[in-house]
Amino acid sequence: MLHVGVDLGGTNIAAGIVDKEGRILLKRSVPTFRERNPEEIIQDMCMLIESLIEEKNLTLRDIKSIGIGSPGLHDRQNGITIYNSNLGFNNVPVRDMVQNRLNIPVYLENDANCAAIAESVSGAAKGEEHAVIITIGTGIGGGVIINKKLYTGFNGAGGELGHVVIALDGEPCSCGRKGCWEAYSSATALIRQTKKAAEENTNSKIWEIIGGNPDKIDAKTAFEAARLGDETGRSVVENYIEILSEGLANMANIFQPGVIVIGGGVSKEGENLLAPLREKVRKKACFFEGIGEPRIEAAQMGNDAGIVGAAFIAEL
Amino acid sequence: MLHVGVDLGGTNIAAGIVDKEGRILLKRSVPTFRERNPEEIIQDMCMLIESLIEEKNLTLRDIKSIGIGSPGLHDRQNGITIYNSNLGFNNVPVRDMVQNRLNIPVYLENDANCAAIAESVSGAAKGEEHAVIITIGTGIGGGVIINKKLYTGFNGAGGELGHVVIALDGEPCSCGRKGCWEAYSSATALIRQTKKAAEENTNSKIWEIIGGNPDKIDAKTAFEAARLGDETGRSVVENYIEILSEGLANMANIFQPGVIVIGGGVSKEGENLLAPLREKVRKKACFFEGIGEPRIEAAQMGNDAGIVGAAFIAEL
Repeated sequence: MLHVGVDLGGTNIAAGIVDKEGRILLKRSVPTFRERNPEEIIQDMCMLIESLIEEKNLTLRDIKSIGIGSPGLHDRQNGITIYNSNLGFNNVPVRDMVQNRLNIPVYLENDANCAAIAESVSGAAKGEEHAVIITIGTGIGGGVIINKKLYTGFNGAGGELGHVVIALDGEPCSCGRKGCWEAYSSATALIRQTKKAAEENTNSKIWEIIGGNPDKIDAKTAFEAARLGDETGRSVVENYIEILSEGLANMANIFQPGVIVIGGGVSKEGENLLAPLREKVRKKACFFEGIGEPRIEAAQMGNDAGIVGAAFIAEL
Repeated sequence: MLHVGVDLGGTNIAAGIVDKEGRILLKRSVPTFRERNPEEIIQDMCMLIESLIEEKNLTLRDIKSIGIGSPGLHDRQNGITIYNSNLGFNNVPVRDMVQNRLNIPVYLENDANCAAIAESVSGAAKGEEHAVIITIGTGIGGGVIINKKLYTGFNGAGGELGHVVIALDGEPCSCGRKGCWEAYSSATALIRQTKKAAEENTNSKIWEIIGGNPDKIDAKTAFEAARLGDETGRSVVENYIEILSEGLANMANIFQPGVIVIGGGVSKEGENLLAPLREKVRKKACFFEGIGEPRIEAAQMGNDAGIVGAAFIAEL
């Protein structure tokens, strides 16, 4: 039996046919054109799904479920997107709109949760009973797997792991609080930290990397400068990893999951990021001799996480 | 069928016979005399259990299981107390020592987790699928109920909710980190905050309450002074509640449990504590209109939590 997974983003709608091992058999995408109304966007999504099924010489009967992952908050029970600020959706009955057309069971889930599902089904958390998946991007997305199931709390809004205050009265966060983990450890925060350090150190190699244009600073810049032996870059990376490790040690103490998976662009730094993180978390968290510690690993599913995770919403 | 629950503390060993509704039919306690070796302490515990059964005119066959709650970390699988600094236990095979004598299945659990089990079985979290139980005492003990089961992570050490850093480089914590929630919101921390405020405000009513002796400051002192209209007491209480609410908002964002239960001596302040906490958490946490928020309630099981929770280890 096959599933369809849809990664409904603000820029593209990506969809794939996924087998029960989590392999993508075929995937395609179309632009979202998000300024359109929900009906038009969902119509395009349905057409994309139909074209995939046709291209693969399948029929609707071969598809067990359609899962749709997108940012925001969803009422899973009733299949309604309560809000999705990326798409401007407010109380849109996405499930019924798709089901009425395709007559296949449809499930909705938050995109960070889809990433967690994907890592659990066939990525870095595969086989683990309990896992925490952190996606470092514009914000910090969290996904929690408990007993191999996605955990979302009594109201579906759980797992907001980026919105854990780690610095009382600290940096302002998009959620309205001050000092959230996300305000220090997101890619957005890393870029802000890199810019500030570059401004304070006009002889840093960062300026060469970005050709003198601060707008070119991204989440890779400080790591790149550090690799070139630049002191400013090294210091930004060290501070970033230090605070990231505080948040990860928090997650270890709270969940003691078998693995903590780190996804998002920053995770591509690989061992440059992971090795010091592991060492710091080991020192900070309440680990006890002989009982084992959570592993800390990079996400494995990359850009496919959204599709694969969405395809498995129904199963998890 | 009946269970025996034992609250094996540093001062007293309390044990009770508990029915399947969580009611204590009979309870007794003896002093622990913790400087003794584990064999002697466990022998006394077994005698206490035997005497309870005899006093209630029961036999060992009427008892389905014996649960033992005590501080520290336990290897549930093998029934070994890995460490318990209160009792000086290190790798003590408690389960086998008790089972060999009484021939009834024996289960071990951390005391904060027992408090959580008790609230879940017949206290403030009864009927809730997911609940977080915070016990405010010397430290902050955490217990997490997910799908009506105790959650402890892959290695049994999860739910260390007091050891979540909320203030980078903040107050030193007993765990070795800086800025843990426990270092701000435990009863120990409240006493420290009250002492400091009293020292800085020599005309505070706190000095009348404690008869001029700072050693008499306890976790109730600031609340008492605040009730008398004392500005220093009011300010201590306000700051305490403010930071406690940050930690609770973190728990809400992470777990979105049906209820967050607050236990320990401080919870006896009732609505003086709970009403402002609810208001602050509502403002801080990521709550979304129309999907419901975790309730915040005082623990209901009081001193019986240890016995009732321990009795139900086997069931949860």
